[in-house]
Amino acid sequence: MPTHPRARVRMPLLPLLLCAMAGATVTAPVAASEADRAYAAVDPFIGTGGEGHTFPGAVVPFGMVQLSPDTRIQARKDAYGWAAGYRYDDRSIVGFSHTHFSGTGHSDLGDVLVLPVSGDITLERGDPDRPGSGYTASFSHETEIAEPGYYAVTLDNTGIRAELTASARVGVHRYRFPAGKPAHLLVDLRTSMYDYPGKVLWSRLRMHPDGTVTGYRKTRGWAPGRELHFAMRFSRAPSGHAFHDTEQDVLYKGFPPPGHQDPRQRAQIEGRQLVAALDFGRPADADGGELIVKVAISPVSERGAIANLDAEVPDFDFDRVRADAREQWKKALSAIEIDAPEADRTAAYTALYHALQAPSLFMDADGRYRGPDNAIHVAEGFQNHSTFSLWDTYRALHPLLTLVQPQRRNNDFIRSLLAAQRQSPYGILPVWSFHGHETWCMIGYHAVPVIADAYLKGIRGYDADAALEAMVASASYGPYDGLAQYMELGYVPIDEEGEAASKTLEYAFDDWTIARMAEAMGREDVAGDFYKRAGNWRNAFDPETGFMRARNRDGGFRVPFDPDASGYGTDYTEGNAWQYSWYVPQDVAGLIAAHGGDAKLVERIDQVFDAEVDPSVFAHMEDITGLIGWYAHGNEPSHHLAYLYAHAGQPWRGQERLARIMATQYKPTPDGLAGNDDLGQMSAWYLFTALGFYPVAPASNEYVIGRPFLPRATLNLPNGRRFTVVAEGLEPGHGYVGAVTLNGEPLPRSFIRHEEIMAGGELRFRMQATPDTDWASAPEQRPYSMSHR
Amino acid sequence: MPTHPRARVRMPLLPLLLCAMAGATVTAPVAASEADRAYAAVDPFIGTGGEGHTFPGAVVPFGMVQLSPDTRIQARKDAYGWAAGYRYDDRSIVGFSHTHFSGTGHSDLGDVLVLPVSGDITLERGDPDRPGSGYTASFSHETEIAEPGYYAVTLDNTGIRAELTASARVGVHRYRFPAGKPAHLLVDLRTSMYDYPGKVLWSRLRMHPDGTVTGYRKTRGWAPGRELHFAMRFSRAPSGHAFHDTEQDVLYKGFPPPGHQDPRQRAQIEGRQLVAALDFGRPADADGGELIVKVAISPVSERGAIANLDAEVPDFDFDRVRADAREQWKKALSAIEIDAPEADRTAAYTALYHALQAPSLFMDADGRYRGPDNAIHVAEGFQNHSTFSLWDTYRALHPLLTLVQPQRRNNDFIRSLLAAQRQSPYGILPVWSFHGHETWCMIGYHAVPVIADAYLKGIRGYDADAALEAMVASASYGPYDGLAQYMELGYVPIDEEGEAASKTLEYAFDDWTIARMAEAMGREDVAGDFYKRAGNWRNAFDPETGFMRARNRDGGFRVPFDPDASGYGTDYTEGNAWQYSWYVPQDVAGLIAAHGGDAKLVERIDQVFDAEVDPSVFAHMEDITGLIGWYAHGNEPSHHLAYLYAHAGQPWRGQERLARIMATQYKPTPDGLAGNDDLGQMSAWYLFTALGFYPVAPASNEYVIGRPFLPRATLNLPNGRRFTVVAEGLEPGHGYVGAVTLNGEPLPRSFIRHEEIMAGGELRFRMQATPDTDWASAPEQRPYSMSHR
Repeated sequence: MPTHPRARVRMPLLPLLLCAMAGATVTAPVAASEADRAYAAVDPFIGTGGEGHTFPGAVVPFGMVQLSPDTRIQARKDAYGWAAGYRYDDRSIVGFSHTHFSGTGHSDLGDVLVLPVSGDITLERGDPDRPGSGYTASFSHETEIAEPGYYAVTLDNTGIRAELTASARVGVHRYRFPAGKPAHLLVDLRTSMYDYPGKVLWSRLRMHPDGTVTGYRKTRGWAPGRELHFAMRFSRAPSGHAFHDTEQDVLYKGFPPPGHQDPRQRAQIEGRQLVAALDFGRPADADGGELIVKVAISPVSERGAIANLDAEVPDFDFDRVRADAREQWKKALSAIEIDAPEADRTAAYTALYHALQAPSLFMDADGRYRGPDNAIHVAEGFQNHSTFSLWDTYRALHPLLTLVQPQRRNNDFIRSLLAAQRQSPYGILPVWSFHGHETWCMIGYHAVPVIADAYLKGIRGYDADAALEAMVASASYGPYDGLAQYMELGYVPIDEEGEAASKTLEYAFDDWTIARMAEAMGREDVAGDFYKRAGNWRNAFDPETGFMRARNRDGGFRVPFDPDASGYGTDYTEGNAWQYSWYVPQDVAGLIAAHGGDAKLVERIDQVFDAEVDPSVFAHMEDITGLIGWYAHGNEPSHHLAYLYAHAGQPWRGQERLARIMATQYKPTPDGLAGNDDLGQMSAWYLFTALGFYPVAPASNEYVIGRPFLPRATLNLPNGRRFTVVAEGLEPGHGYVGAVTLNGEPLPRSFIRHEEIMAGGELRFRMQATPDTDWASAPEQRPYSMSHR
Repeated sequence: MPTHPRARVRMPLLPLLLCAMAGATVTAPVAASEADRAYAAVDPFIGTGGEGHTFPGAVVPFGMVQLSPDTRIQARKDAYGWAAGYRYDDRSIVGFSHTHFSGTGHSDLGDVLVLPVSGDITLERGDPDRPGSGYTASFSHETEIAEPGYYAVTLDNTGIRAELTASARVGVHRYRFPAGKPAHLLVDLRTSMYDYPGKVLWSRLRMHPDGTVTGYRKTRGWAPGRELHFAMRFSRAPSGHAFHDTEQDVLYKGFPPPGHQDPRQRAQIEGRQLVAALDFGRPADADGGELIVKVAISPVSERGAIANLDAEVPDFDFDRVRADAREQWKKALSAIEIDAPEADRTAAYTALYHALQAPSLFMDADGRYRGPDNAIHVAEGFQNHSTFSLWDTYRALHPLLTLVQPQRRNNDFIRSLLAAQRQSPYGILPVWSFHGHETWCMIGYHAVPVIADAYLKGIRGYDADAALEAMVASASYGPYDGLAQYMELGYVPIDEEGEAASKTLEYAFDDWTIARMAEAMGREDVAGDFYKRAGNWRNAFDPETGFMRARNRDGGFRVPFDPDASGYGTDYTEGNAWQYSWYVPQDVAGLIAAHGGDAKLVERIDQVFDAEVDPSVFAHMEDITGLIGWYAHGNEPSHHLAYLYAHAGQPWRGQERLARIMATQYKPTPDGLAGNDDLGQMSAWYLFTALGFYPVAPASNEYVIGRPFLPRATLNLPNGRRFTVVAEGLEPGHGYVGAVTLNGEPLPRSFIRHEEIMAGGELRFRMQATPDTDWASAPEQRPYSMSHR
């Protein structure tokens, strides 16, 4: 049990916990105007420039369909910048595809690309640097509208007005064609984010007698062997179609259907380079030029896609689907009510918007989906989700979702993770998975802290014993990333496994969360083992240099050692010694002691922030961006750093750093994110920090207090209570926290407990021009550290 | 209604028909020794040499698994001779794969190749011309045993004894390894009949914790997009495994599982060139060196394969599976009891064996299967079958199966065809399909005569109205092979569609069968239309040359005309004018009249048989073999020709031709088939002809009498009755039919009705040295012709 002294919780917790455990999703009534204002504040273009890698298209919260314009289909070497398909600087639109990642550093998806065409049709994509060449269209931002669940643009070269909206599994397009020319749709199955020859393994197109078009494709991208099915219907049936296979130089395509050498006679075609041209006569002459296209996707089958279409969008009422999407977003965004200057409201609501994109739904309306074994499963009693960017999102996104989303949704995430573990050929929880597939991207077993954090917060809609077993299995699977050696030696040896220092540190943190959950479950056996493992960070600590380093199997640190060096071949994962040496969120007190006291650690952290660093040192590491000294806000290993001043008893120093980060790393503009949004982690960091606290150690049930950046913000909690954060005197020059009260009582410590938030109430800060160097400086006023258990 | 004069049927038919309609499968008891003798007479090696393209491996009647050794994996240009994987002349075995065609002229399948290895293991296949190179093993026929449902061989280079047997969905291997060396199995997913780079689109291998290995692959062969799943279990779990992906020069394989660069650590692998090496320690030291391997396949999923394994072979009792297979074959072969010299018994029972390979089962134990839309369907109330080589098999194989297989099985074939039509993207019945996929191979819509023939024979376990609708739909689908033009012009115009003469002729025959069935159903409207279309053969007849020829759209025959020319670009499909000009089985009387009388047609047929032909004229057409003059018994367009003498009132002339064909085209030796067995059509021709009659016009319910070649043969009919054919005086020099009696009464006509056979009884021939030129010469004694309706 924790022995660290704690202030008493003043409200009876049990009724709240019971309420939470029952999955109650009572939301406090929110004035329509408040929800409307929240909705209107979102700017989906934020992050579409720079390296934010967000997309501006149409999606509902956690929707399976993410329908968005693709401005360029990039080949491998240039794919990084186009991970979400769209870059704000571009002036071309290749088409509108139905799946995207929000803010990844790696690319895939971009399925079922649709482009409306007026007049003559070509199957060539053209050159995006010459808008209007091939079928690629030109556009300008003047004609664009992007709102949650809605996107519109005019394709300048053809004059077609395109509008997009979406339900969970269906993308709906409304096209208005100019008069006088034949209207067509291209459906190009050859394109993909991160394009290269041979990526499409197989695909299919089928025209059904009733005018429904279905198909699928199987790709060998980031998730090799991924398959996705789709079904399309049109507000009027195509008057004609042509199914083309443009693959050249193929030894053997199989017998063509006799008499179907004419692409217009093919009812079905299979191949690797398929594109459909659908004809719609001259709709402008018939019905104002309007064509509604609805496209469902399915992980399972074309039949599943048709059923999804029927279940969600049985008609062709674009405006109804758009209104439904808007209502979903208004409800979701109402989780926080913000009083702040418009720019801050835009940044905050857009951050919340971006935090609600993933893990996204991944199952058919009938509950069927594909698991990590690429087999079809049925979700019994939960909604299966995928796209778990766990190395990023265990830090702040998942903790945020426990505050702003219903328990049901958080339970769905956990049950999805547990189902994936049961279905995994390796018997372990997802590492980085999407569309059911394990990508093995990044390091650690960070599904573990997501589950532990939720469990300790009373989110319990799953089999906790099975969950603990899955967590232990994931932490004990020897072949994974030096884990066998870690279990043997207490650290990952760099002479046997790359990036060993980072792995040792992250494993130790994950292990601590297992111990925490096991302890709460009364499983002292497991807790004992994993508390012990949680101390393994000490095996990476080099007292001589004060850095975390990787050891060889023989116990010695690897030499030569360059603390500036980052990336492949070094001791670290997407970072260097300056960035990774403070990653002991479970035991910052222990880290401080190892360094020789508060002042020593503070000095080192100052060195990180104040270093003069030539950014070109990270030219080879596209993910390390947003530099302040060595601090790299564009990537996750730095995210907790500014909060560690609190653990050292000097929270005011952290307040300075946070102000600098907020001022330099976020802007309410397309290039307003300093790095990949990483499926909401960057945005979750922003929201927590703006509210005034941050989950440095998920599963501690504590949030470390930084300083607020919003005059007033109220969380409408999933249990129906309201928790308000007020920042009095928040004005330029007032960068320091003065008096802090919780429900009117002084709060002498630099952390707040999850239970205190969930109880509802008010956290009030008085901001001032000078630091309060005394507040929360005493050891018992500092956040949790394991060595104080 | 038919108006052609007929002898009265003497037995009341109604009770028999009712019995047949109820699907009764009562089989007359057969003495065990008779069934054993039938079983022992089969020689699965017949047809494995020459161009028979049969395989010697283990299969149950119509089994989904056809487990057989592959002696060479051939690339495209040389694939023809290795269509079944095995050639008797070879001395290498690459491995044992689980799917094969029996007697095709085109190649595919060869899924899940397994090879036992003793000692060191290599992943290279090696050179089949150097047995023992790579992993390819050497063998000699001395160690081989092949019986229905069982195959054994010793791999000389490793000393491993290999035995194979099978149930419907499971292949079972028993390997005996020599002592002292490690035992391994290779599972190579890279190989295929008709191999070429890129054929394997994707594949997967998975090692389950319990030692089960599952996987699948998707190929782009003859049926592009085909996928097949499998599951393997072993009498003892592998002690280790390695999953390799040998694909080179691939731009992007996806992230490898961390820590799984070692192929031995991979629990699952996906890719295009996968091979597994499984370790089994030193079984010779442990349990006599024996390892049992059972492999289930599934059209649906790996889970489906596991369920098939559990359902059919829950244990590792090789001998039980073998005994079950033997019992199934004994029962199936008992459909005919043959008294004849041993060589004739071997030829006849092997022909029956080869006639019971396809259409093969294609569904999981739970009824699920893949249809022509490549989607998963459930067979409700029937067993789904695939591998329909219809251009071949509508002629004699399917008619044979109505006599030697239960109604249930024949109904399954028809319901499988009808299900495929419902699921077809084109809404038509299969043309040439396997593993659910349409290959569009060959011409015509010959599912139509299969259904009509069964319907008219009282096989009715399906929705007849839907069947007729499906038949009409198939005969009306314009884009198929010039069918739109055929419907417009009454013939297929050669200037718009290739091989137009063959198509016109075959469409006209198929149309007649629709008319026959429609008439029997009282659908006079349909019957009228299709009787009319059945006369379209006249549009191909050129009175000037006496040949069937193709016309241009303008009505004129295409010039120049070369009756010797065959193949692509000519008027004919796998044939020439000499071979195709007599294809009017529905109206031979009409053809005779067109030629100007019996003598004229006989003269022309004589020219066919008696021509002096240099076989090199067909060097470019691999399927045209078995020449007697222009007559090519190795391919189907000739198959009915010798029987047409009966229609011309000169059956004794046909008897001469049949004797010549039987003597020269069949031998009870590996090279004993003159051409591809074509999924049993060649064998069915042999059996009918040996019995003394042949279904020249399926759906006429008549068999044209030729002459018997067996002293005595009894059909144990599916309705429980027995029909015996006796040939008295069958000895060298007695090549002509003299007196013929049916149930003791003289039979004056050259045909026998299906109903007469199904009624049971005896057909007795007296063979003699001189022709009876009078018997069955009168017009009313000749077989059905449409112009006599």
